[in-house]
Amino acid sequence: MIKNDILLRTLNGESTERPPVWFMRQAGRYLPDYLKLKEKYSFFERVQIPDLAAEITTMPVEQVGVDAAILFSDILVISQCLGHEVEMVPGVGPVIEDPVRDLSAIDRLKTGNEESFFRYATPAIKAVKDRLDGSVPLIGFCGSPWTLMCYMVEGKGSKNFAKAKELCAKNPDAAARFLDILTDASIEYLKIKIRAGVDVIQVFDSWGGLLSPEWHAQFSLPYLERIAAEISKEVPVILFSKDAWHALKGLSETKASAVGLSWTMPASYARSQCGQDMVLQGNLDPSILLTTPEVVARETTKMIDRFGTGHHIVNLGHGVLPNTPVECARAFVDTAKSYSYA
Amino acid sequence: MIKNDILLRTLNGESTERPPVWFMRQAGRYLPDYLKLKEKYSFFERVQIPDLAAEITTMPVEQVGVDAAILFSDILVISQCLGHEVEMVPGVGPVIEDPVRDLSAIDRLKTGNEESFFRYATPAIKAVKDRLDGSVPLIGFCGSPWTLMCYMVEGKGSKNFAKAKELCAKNPDAAARFLDILTDASIEYLKIKIRAGVDVIQVFDSWGGLLSPEWHAQFSLPYLERIAAEISKEVPVILFSKDAWHALKGLSETKASAVGLSWTMPASYARSQCGQDMVLQGNLDPSILLTTPEVVARETTKMIDRFGTGHHIVNLGHGVLPNTPVECARAFVDTAKSYSYA
Repeated sequence: MIKNDILLRTLNGESTERPPVWFMRQAGRYLPDYLKLKEKYSFFERVQIPDLAAEITTMPVEQVGVDAAILFSDILVISQCLGHEVEMVPGVGPVIEDPVRDLSAIDRLKTGNEESFFRYATPAIKAVKDRLDGSVPLIGFCGSPWTLMCYMVEGKGSKNFAKAKELCAKNPDAAARFLDILTDASIEYLKIKIRAGVDVIQVFDSWGGLLSPEWHAQFSLPYLERIAAEISKEVPVILFSKDAWHALKGLSETKASAVGLSWTMPASYARSQCGQDMVLQGNLDPSILLTTPEVVARETTKMIDRFGTGHHIVNLGHGVLPNTPVECARAFVDTAKSYSYA
Repeated sequence: MIKNDILLRTLNGESTERPPVWFMRQAGRYLPDYLKLKEKYSFFERVQIPDLAAEITTMPVEQVGVDAAILFSDILVISQCLGHEVEMVPGVGPVIEDPVRDLSAIDRLKTGNEESFFRYATPAIKAVKDRLDGSVPLIGFCGSPWTLMCYMVEGKGSKNFAKAKELCAKNPDAAARFLDILTDASIEYLKIKIRAGVDVIQVFDSWGGLLSPEWHAQFSLPYLERIAAEISKEVPVILFSKDAWHALKGLSETKASAVGLSWTMPASYARSQCGQDMVLQGNLDPSILLTTPEVVARETTKMIDRFGTGHHIVNLGHGVLPNTPVECARAFVDTAKSYSYA
């Protein structure tokens, strides 16, 4: 049904001829054709208008040759669904209306609203699938409950998300309630995406690495576990907890099919934590893609070598950086596609 | 000679009745009396005028009760010494004149200049020592060569210091030359401080955690090793490589007397990497100090418990945050001082 199914075969635990390749933030940021659309349409137009979402989502497949598309969207749509509008402020990033800082604000969240709120996702996904025409699988995603809570408590990006940690320290029960609500909403949202046609789910625990190991085990991992358990019944799940190196074993013991790695996590360490058969995803330093195609090819080959001969998805250790030259992104993809396990 | 020598005894490998306590950025940032001085004097006046440097350095000893003073200064004085002026721009942070981005700029660095450039440090340190009057030891510090190179290549703070990494990727020999120059200058600078009276040195590898393990081993650790080897002949050295969890073993194999830990590094993991007898320093999440004295006391006790009954210096896992209430800083110090290993 899907012509290039190397990502799906890898997630299914099969041996493949080479590693599949895609990369985080591949749809957007660095692509000149995307930047033109960004000037003409607001962020939420780009996410919600089916033809626009389809054009942006398939752009890296057509222009860079990745083995999977990832639906263009943002993790903060869950905040909107729960009644807290998000504004993308240039130079600042996302700003959330009326941050959620106490139990009464948590109790006022608009829950059970997913079906009507995410109605726009279905035509957008169908437009993407039409445009992909079975060429490669489509990945859908959401943020981890902890990461969403960070933004919704803080009200915007932060170096340390101290207000979210303050909630955890002062009122762990309220934090747990908030995280449960975010988990429920995320599962409903992902099920809508899956019904509309996405083939794989990735969960981004982008701020997991800001937590101490004890707090990650308390405030992030259990909610990732619940999402993986529920969603893996329908499609394969990839869990990426950025910089939470101490959580790899725990992540590999969930129902996820793959665990994503930051560039600071050695392949050998990840294998020792997750086992030889766990599919690992990553982990080139995105800064390498700011150099030259030659440097990218050399460093990408070295990176793939370290993971052995299978159960590996080539990706960056975090999202591609805004000023990445397209030829360096292509060198990254080409290196993976011409690699041979034979 | 020094009345409260619990930090020195701990660094000397001795068993003590309780852990010593100090914390990164204790001199400045959150102390109301410091903030008043900050309004009246420029950053470099505060560093260079002996009475001001002495007042700021001893403030946390007098007001919060820490077991050591740390000389008020900034890691970027090395950039100034090498001919690249630093300006502290409010809301931006340090901005470096004429960033160093290629071999010819590296070759133009003003080396061998330390003795005359750091002449101001001696009276400042003598004023601090007079004011401390033997109450507690005085810590001096510098940045790691890698961290200094980050700023000097980028020209200012950055989330990923991609330009410094670009230099490493495209021209590793030039990067090595730059790092060697920074190492030499740092050693000379630290020797001037030691001759003037500092009792302990800490090296801040603040951006060590941005490097992949392979690159940390190539572009940071060897230079930390060289500084530790040279300086440990005169005073004990503490190496702190923020978030470089994969480097702990390497750091513990240098001549350093102690290894600093970020709050994301479990005590048990650090002990497994560094051994039971290595002195470990850290590692409470600085965000905890934004809560209440009760929460601080509870979390600090739990943190100390995890390190066992010795070879531990109580500290934060990174610098104290600007809005920390003084009573929370006091609760942190009081908890360590009333802890008993008996």
